[in-house]
This record gives sequence, C-alpha cells and structure tokens, in this order.
Amino acid sequence: MWYYEKKLQYPVKVRECNPRLAKYLIEQYGGADGELSAALRYLNQRYTIPGKVIGLLNDIGTEEFAHLEMIATMIYKLTKDATPEMLEAAGLAPHYVNHDSALFYHNSAGNPWTAEYIQAKGDPIADIYEDIAAEEKARATYQWIINMSDDPELNDSLKFLREREIVHSQRFREAAEILKEDRDKKIFF
Amino acid sequence: MWYYEKKLQYPVKVRECNPRLAKYLIEQYGGADGELSAALRYLNQRYTIPGKVIGLLNDIGTEEFAHLEMIATMIYKLTKDATPEMLEAAGLAPHYVNHDSALFYHNSAGNPWTAEYIQAKGDPIADIYEDIAAEEKARATYQWIINMSDDPELNDSLKFLREREIVHSQRFREAAEILKEDRDKKIFF
Amino acid sequence: MWYYEKKLQYPVKVRECNPRLAKYLIEQYGGADGELSAALRYLNQRYTIPGKVIGLLNDIGTEEFAHLEMIATMIYKLTKDATPEMLEAAGLAPHYVNHDSALFYHNSAGNPWTAEYIQAKGDPIADIYEDIAAEEKARATYQWIINMSDDPELNDSLKFLREREIVHSQRFREAAEILKEDRDKKIFF
Amino acid sequence: MWYYEKKLQYPVKVRECNPRLAKYLIEQYGGADGELSAALRYLNQRYTIPGKVIGLLNDIGTEEFAHLEMIATMIYKLTKDATPEMLEAAGLAPHYVNHDSALFYHNSAGNPWTAEYIQAKGDPIADIYEDIAAEEKARATYQWIINMSDDPELNDSLKFLREREIVHSQRFREAAEILKEDRDKKIFF
Amino acid sequence: MWYYEKKLQYPVKVRECNPRLAKYLIEQYGGADGELSAALRYLNQRYTIPGKVIGLLNDIGTEEFAHLEMIATMIYKLTKDATPEMLEAAGLAPHYVNHDSALFYHNSAGNPWTAEYIQAKGDPIADIYEDIAAEEKARATYQWIINMSDDPELNDSLKFLREREIVHSQRFREAAEILKEDRDKKIFF
Amino acid sequence: MWYYEKKLQYPVKVRECNPRLAKYLIEQYGGADGELSAALRYLNQRYTIPGKVIGLLNDIGTEEFAHLEMIATMIYKLTKDATPEMLEAAGLAPHYVNHDSALFYHNSAGNPWTAEYIQAKGDPIADIYEDIAAEEKARATYQWIINMSDDPELNDSLKFLREREIVHSQRFREAAEILKEDRDKKIFF
Repeated sequence: MWYYEKKLQYPVKVRECNPRLAKYLIEQYGGADGELSAALRYLNQRYTIPGKVIGLLNDIGTEEFAHLEMIATMIYKLTKDATPEMLEAAGLAPHYVNHDSALFYHNSAGNPWTAEYIQAKGDPIADIYEDIAAEEKARATYQWIINMSDDPELNDSLKFLREREIVHSQRFREAAEILKEDRDKKIFF
Repeated sequence: MWYYEKKLQYPVKVRECNPRLAKYLIEQYGGADGELSAALRYLNQRYTIPGKVIGLLNDIGTEEFAHLEMIATMIYKLTKDATPEMLEAAGLAPHYVNHDSALFYHNSAGNPWTAEYIQAKGDPIADIYEDIAAEEKARATYQWIINMSDDPELNDSLKFLREREIVHSQRFREAAEILKEDRDKKIFF
Repeated sequence: MWYYEKKLQYPVKVRECNPRLAKYLIEQYGGADGELSAALRYLNQRYTIPGKVIGLLNDIGTEEFAHLEMIATMIYKLTKDATPEMLEAAGLAPHYVNHDSALFYHNSAGNPWTAEYIQAKGDPIADIYEDIAAEEKARATYQWIINMSDDPELNDSLKFLREREIVHSQRFREAAEILKEDRDKKIFF
Repeated sequence: MWYYEKKLQYPVKVRECNPRLAKYLIEQYGGADGELSAALRYLNQRYTIPGKVIGLLNDIGTEEFAHLEMIATMIYKLTKDATPEMLEAAGLAPHYVNHDSALFYHNSAGNPWTAEYIQAKGDPIADIYEDIAAEEKARATYQWIINMSDDPELNDSLKFLREREIVHSQRFREAAEILKEDRDKKIFF
Repeated sequence: MWYYEKKLQYPVKVRECNPRLAKYLIEQYGGADGELSAALRYLNQRYTIPGKVIGLLNDIGTEEFAHLEMIATMIYKLTKDATPEMLEAAGLAPHYVNHDSALFYHNSAGNPWTAEYIQAKGDPIADIYEDIAAEEKARATYQWIINMSDDPELNDSLKFLREREIVHSQRFREAAEILKEDRDKKIFF
Repeated sequence: MWYYEKKLQYPVKVRECNPRLAKYLIEQYGGADGELSAALRYLNQRYTIPGKVIGLLNDIGTEEFAHLEMIATMIYKLTKDATPEMLEAAGLAPHYVNHDSALFYHNSAGNPWTAEYIQAKGDPIADIYEDIAAEEKARATYQWIINMSDDPELNDSLKFLREREIVHSQRFREAAEILKEDRDKKIFF
C-alpha cells in the first residue's frame, strides 16, 4: 500500500497562466504514452514478472504516480486563473463545457484514457520490451511538448521528467538482459 | 507523492486456486465501478474541489489504491496455480490467450477500463454526488461478487472492502452537506 | 410505447446562425452528461427499480427525450445557414468533413456517445444516486454552456432546461429517501 | 416530443425463465444493429434529410423505440426469476457482477453501445443507404437469434419484429428512389 | 497474399505544404468511412459471401489499400515540411504532441479508428447493402473534403478517388441484384 | 500499391471443424497484438521513419497482411461446417448472433479492434522499440494459443507464424542499432 506525503518529487513552477500549454501537456496526463499509462502498466505487470524484476516495476510504477501528480500540478497552475474566454482561445472550450477547469484523463485531442493503450502478456521478455518502448514513447512525447512550450520555468520540470524516462528506459534494458540470461539458463519457461 | 510499503491494508486469504472467482472479481479491478475508477476519480477531482474537501478526496483516493492492490493480490492468488485447462473451464481462455496469467484492467466481460467511466465537472456539488454514487455502485458490485463467491476466506476480505465503501459514502454525504452550506453562504459560486 | 407530437416541450429560439455555440451545445446532445445519457439511463433502469419509482423514471426518461429534441433543434437552427467557412471558423471542420451539417451524437470534443457514460446496478440505492449525480452533472454542463453563450434567446431555453435538471434532482432525492425507508423496513433486499 | 402510453406495440410472451436466450437477445438491445441503433440513427438524421423523407424517418425512428421497449420487456421476462446460479449457467455472470439483473445497453459479447455503430453524412443518398443497410443487418440479427431460440412464444414476437425490419427496408428503398429522382432533377445538390 | 510494387494507383500531387488540408484529409485515412474501413470491410467479408461475389470483394478491397496509400502520401506531402508552429495553426498541435509528423489512423476530430465502424453479418444481402452504403458514405466524405480544399492539384487526385467510390457503389448494386436473384432461386438460404 | 495473388504465404491445414480453437485464434486476427495490428502499425510508420528502415517496415508490413490472411483462412476452416449449436458450445454464440459465421476484427473476448492498440511517435528510436515490443507480444500470443490447441496440423502453421515473429523481432533489433548509431552521428535529430 502507499502513503501520501504532501510534496512533489521535483518542484513545479510555471511562469504564468497559459492554457495553451495546458492543452498540450494534458497528453502526458491522460494520453497513450503519458504518466497514467506508465504507472498502471508497471504496477499491473509486477504480479507475474519474475521476482528479480518485481522491485524495479514497483519502484518505477510508484515514481510514475509522482510524475502524474507533477503533471496535474502543472496543468492546474497553467489554467487556474484562466477565464472561459482564455480557455476558448486555447482550444479548451470543449474541455470547459464538459469539465469546467477540472482535470480529466484525456489526451490533447480529448480522447479519454483507455487500458487499450497498455499491455501485460505474462511473458517476461514481451513485458519488458513493452516497458522499454513505453519509456521511449514517453520521452518522445516530452520532447514534442517541450518543442511547443514557451515557458522556460515549466521546461525545467519537463526536462527533469524527460530525463527520468531515459533513466527508466536504461534500467528496463538492463532488466531485459537479465531476463534473457535467465531464459537461456531455463530459469523460466 | 506516494511512498510504497510492502504490506496490504487488510490481509488477503484465499482458500484455494479458484479462477472462476477471479473472473468475477476482476470487475473490481478494471470494471466501471471498481477500485481503479475510484482511486483515479478522487485523486483527479482534488485539484478543483473546495479546500475543505481536498484532504478527504486525497485520503480516500489513496486508500482506493490500497484496495486495488488487495484486489490484484486476490486475483493473483486465485489464479497463480491454475493450468490453462482450469482457466478455460472458468471462462478465462480469452484472457489467457491475450495475457497468460497476467492481470489486466478490464471488467468481468473483458472490456478494458476507460476514463469514460468517471467524471469531473468542476462543480463541487456535482462532483461530490458523482462520488457518493460511485461508492454506492461499488458497494453493490461487492455484494454481487460475494453472492457468487464460494470462498469464505476471500469473503472476509470482500466484506471488509464493502464496509469501506459504506464508510466512504457516508463521508462523502457529510461533505455534500458542508458544500451545500457553503454554497448557500455564497462561499463558492 | 411512445407517440410523437410535432411540438417542442418549450420553444426554442436562436438569434442568429452561430456555429460556435452549436459546437459547445452538442455536449448536451451526445456528451457524457447530456440528454441522451439521461433518457437512456432512466428508461433502462425502470425494469428493475422498485415499483414505487418506476413511474418517476418513466416520466423523467420520456421528458429527457423531449429535451434531446430541443437541443437538436437548437443545434440545427444555429448551423443550418452556415457555410463550410463559417463551420471551420467555429472549429467544426472535423465535424463537417465527416457529417456535413448533419447532427451526430458526440460531445464538444468529438467523442462519440457510449453507454460507458451511464450505469444500472440493479441496487435501488445505487441506481437512484447514479441518477441524482447525473442531474447535478447535467446542471453543471448547462451552466458552463450558458457561460459561453452570447445568444440571450438561446439562453432562455437553456435556463429552462437547467431548471428542469434541478427539479429532477430534487425528485430523485425524494425517491432516494423513500427507497432508504423501504430498505430499512426490509421491503427490498 | 413524445407521449408514453403504457402498452407494447405487439404482445410479448415468454414460455419460461430462460437467461440463455436473454444473453443472445440483448444483441438487439445494445448491439451494433439493434433497436437502439435504429431509433437513434433515424431520429438524428431527420434534421438534414430532404423534407419528403423527414416524416418517414420520424415514424420509423419512433417505432424503433417501441421495438426497443419490446426487447427490454423480453429480456426482463426471461431473467426476472433467474437465480445467480442460473445466470452463471447462461454465461451471464459477468453481466450479473456489474449489473445484477438490470438491463444494460451492450451486445451479446458485453460491448457497451457506441454511436460509432451509426452514421449521418448529410448526403441524402448516403444516409438512406445507411438506413437500408441497417434494416437488412437488423433482419439478419433477428434471424440468427431465432435460430438460437427454443421458445416458440418468444419467436412469435421476434418474427413480428423481423417482418417490421423488412417493411422498413422496403420503405427506405422507395425513399431512395424518390431521392435519386430529385437529385437528377437537381432539387438538391 | 499481396505483393507490393512501389508505385501509386494514381499520381498524387500537392501544390504546397498545407497542414490545414492534411487535418481534414485524415478523415479518409482513419475515419468511419475512410479507405481503411473500406479495405478491411471487404477483405473480411469475402470468406462468407457467396462465391460469385468473392472476386469483387477481393478486387475492391485490394484497390482500397491502394487508395489508403494514396491518402497517406497526400497527408505526408502536405505536412512533411511543416514546422510545429504551422501544425499548431492548422489545429494539428494535439496530433503533434502525440505523433510528431507521423501519420495515425484517426479521423479529423482525432478519434482512433475502430472496427465498430464496419460490419459483417454473414447474410449476403445485408453485407452487400453495408458495402453500397459504405461507398456512398465515402463518396460524400470526399465531397465535403473537396469543398474544403484550396489545392487544385490535390483535388485532381481526390476527384479520381471520389469517382472510384461511385464505380464501386455501382458494382456492389449489380452484385446485390445477382444475390437477390439467387436468393429467390433458393441458391442460398 | 499491392497486387493480390491467390495463394497463402504458407499452407494452412486444420484437422477438423473446431470452433473452440477459432474462438482463441481470433485473438491474432483482431486482438491487440494480432496480425492486423502488426500490418497497420508498420505500414503507417514507414512515412516518417528514416530512409534506411522504410524498406524493412514495408516488407514486414506486407508480410503481416499475408499472415492476417492465413489466420482468416484458419478461422474460416475451423468454423465453416459448424452448426449454431457447435458455435454455442465453443462460446461463440455472442459472435453468431451478431455475425453468423462471418469473420470479424475482434479479439477472443469480443472487443473490436482499435487503433489505440498501436502507436507512431515520429521518433525513430521510439517507433522501432514499439515494433520490437509488438513482435515479442505477438510471439507470446502465438505461444498461448498453441498451448490451447489440440490440432497438430494447425499447430504447424502457428509455429511457422511464431517463428516469423522471432525473425521480425531480430530484424527490428538490428534496425534499432542502426538508428542509434545514426542518432549518435547526429544523422537525425
């Protein structure tokens, strides 16, 4: 089980109210390769992955929830002082008439999050490559958002998160090698 | 952010390998009114709910993740020793050919979880009634699963979880009264 | 069964061709908390709700279809004289290339309606709270659309509809009390 | 707007409690080519179809709601006395743990209804062929269900409904000819 | 099986980088009535359609993949030189943050393609009317996109594709007559 | 564009009518990690992947369509002589009432195929890892189906297909190394 502590993994600052950026950033909240996908994917896989990798999935999955909270905080800060007119100018009127300024788990195009974005196969090699791919895709998404961003303070947090994806990808690649070695030694299947 | 401790909120025991029960129980893992819906709904709403209720949503949302972990543990224990033949006899062959024995966020009929199951309106009264309804629906789901269950040890945990939903519903009703009072005093909108 | 009479429950006027408003209003046609959700939810639940509440669900469900027709009429009037250029300026070009000026059951972001938005649990208390929550969410949606609207004639109809949601919510709350009393007297479950 | 009268378009009888048949029949309640699809498709298209065909769409759309009510009544009668064990034996346990014996708009495989099943193009010829195809598909679905049915009393109602689809298909074909004539006379586009 | 030859069925030219048009054109790539729907629908139905029509479905299905490739080429040419700023101005920023300039099977509103758009009933008459309707709907979609287009070179290819849909519709109508004759002669069902 | 030749990539034999196996095998037709996902993923990515890898994606994507056709042929052969009673005994009655014996792009649990299963990020490394993961997941799915199969003739074809996935995975890994080298040489981004 988890205990909540009222702090963020890394500080989140935004320069100003900026709903345009919020609209794009929400891709990492409820999009295909966002932080919700990451957290739920890893925590779900940990039940059937070989024991050596369970801790890694548990740690990274828990960290991804902290990232999800950082993204939520960013979006909230970027929109909390926005008028309906400002939201409309940013292309967020469809979000507004459904959710006001509340957050929601959808992507930048407005598609609600679905578990169809993630997978768990029970096969250790397949699962770990799913995870490597996930981190590479999340890294790319951060890059595309940074390319769109005009807020250097926000970018500092986004770059931190992008770096974490690179670290996770590296750790999953190491786990892949361990799993392949064990497979070749017939330790599993 | 959250810290993980390797223990369950309440002990989970199962009498024996029982994939039939796992098939029904997964409704509370990835179904419309399951624990994933609950956790994600409350933690998402907390950004725009009035300050007095944020702590409540945070606490209950965090607890629902602990419930999600209990459900996952139950499903894992009910299926980990099942052969493919046993899974097939329990109606889980469609799950098996896609996921082997790995867990997945879908309901008992096999529909993947979607954020379309939950809502956040930005309106405090609407959000809190969404939450009361959610707890009542989760309570009903636990009842239908208990009605299907032939495992008294599992039922002990399920009854604990059903009770928690009743407590949460009561707390959300109290919050609704506070929010209505504040609305009448024009504290918000 | 139902009989159609060629009149609206309440008159619908619009000041002028205004596809921008149509884009937002469609949230109440095919959105999560719109009139289609309401009508289908109540008429579906009436088969298993206790007898005392069947008539209420039937009446409100039938009225919601009249509301759906009012919303459809509004959208049609707001867009029927719009050129493709005007639709594009209002953010409706994605709708146009798929549907021309025909209506469609999707929300303001373009997500098609799905039964995942609604629920029926068989448990009377859970179902009636689902319904109260639905009315509160619909009320909020009307408010967010009114906030976006620059057409006072349209707003007159929207305020009528918002009021009806408040009345329905009140009636469902009264039904909840009746159901709880009967539950305590063990009349059902 | 519509007025409800408490009678069915055609009498619905079932020989006995038969959840197996209910499981298949629900295809016509919330499935791709079921009565909900039909009613919502026609009533939605009527706003932009040429005037000569509006009345036809309105009449058939309204009748399809009466069919939806007949299907609902059948499902209710086939399941209202079923125990959870009987529902499980019929493959309805996944439905039960989510909905108890309440109805829901999903198909026989448990997929919730979605507006992605239907279409409105604004082009009269395209819309009317969508409607002809819809009636032919509904006819086929009734045939496959009748093939599965072991209840001659239920079959009487199902055959009535299948016949109505054939009549509707014929009427839509006649409308297609009228629309093509008008197109060739340049009455529209 | 299929063999690939590196040429297009019909030449594709675009006047200039034009992401606005790409946004609308993608409706025919991953939308309800687009080329992917067409190809997958016909190739799937060919297994159970009567023998006389198999070749027709196979030919048209294969041709639709050639159309899909033409549409992909158009979208690629319209966007390959676009900066993120140009994509944003065209309403494609939500696409960009998820996919950069890669193509994806979604419609103009951003909804991912789903098999719920298509059908196969096993009934020859129902299947062939599904196909006629599909061609009419695709024809309408091409018309709405041409109405939006300001690129005469692109329009040349779009008009070719629209014509092909009209030809396919005609061939499916002929097939419908053959199937009806055979049905009346009791050759099938 | 593609040319069709009326032969299969590898012979498909089935020992006997066996709808039970068809129900599981359909996972590779319309499931998350099936052949449709593979073909559509690779052919879509080829527009924006670096030139060195385009041919590989084109070849493998085209081959996956040949695999899709093999799977379709298997399902057709396993079910074409099945009575409705046999389909029901195999858990295929929900398929039958919707589709008769026609094929459809859904998975073994009956969920229709969706593009949400696949991804294209525009980032070469992310896309190629998506592809490696896809092949590993497809390999696992073949294994789970083989584990369920009691038809040695069918298994011969399934083992051929599983081997192809392993070969594809290897080729995508080689491509990943080439792409990484080029990235390090700053050939792209």
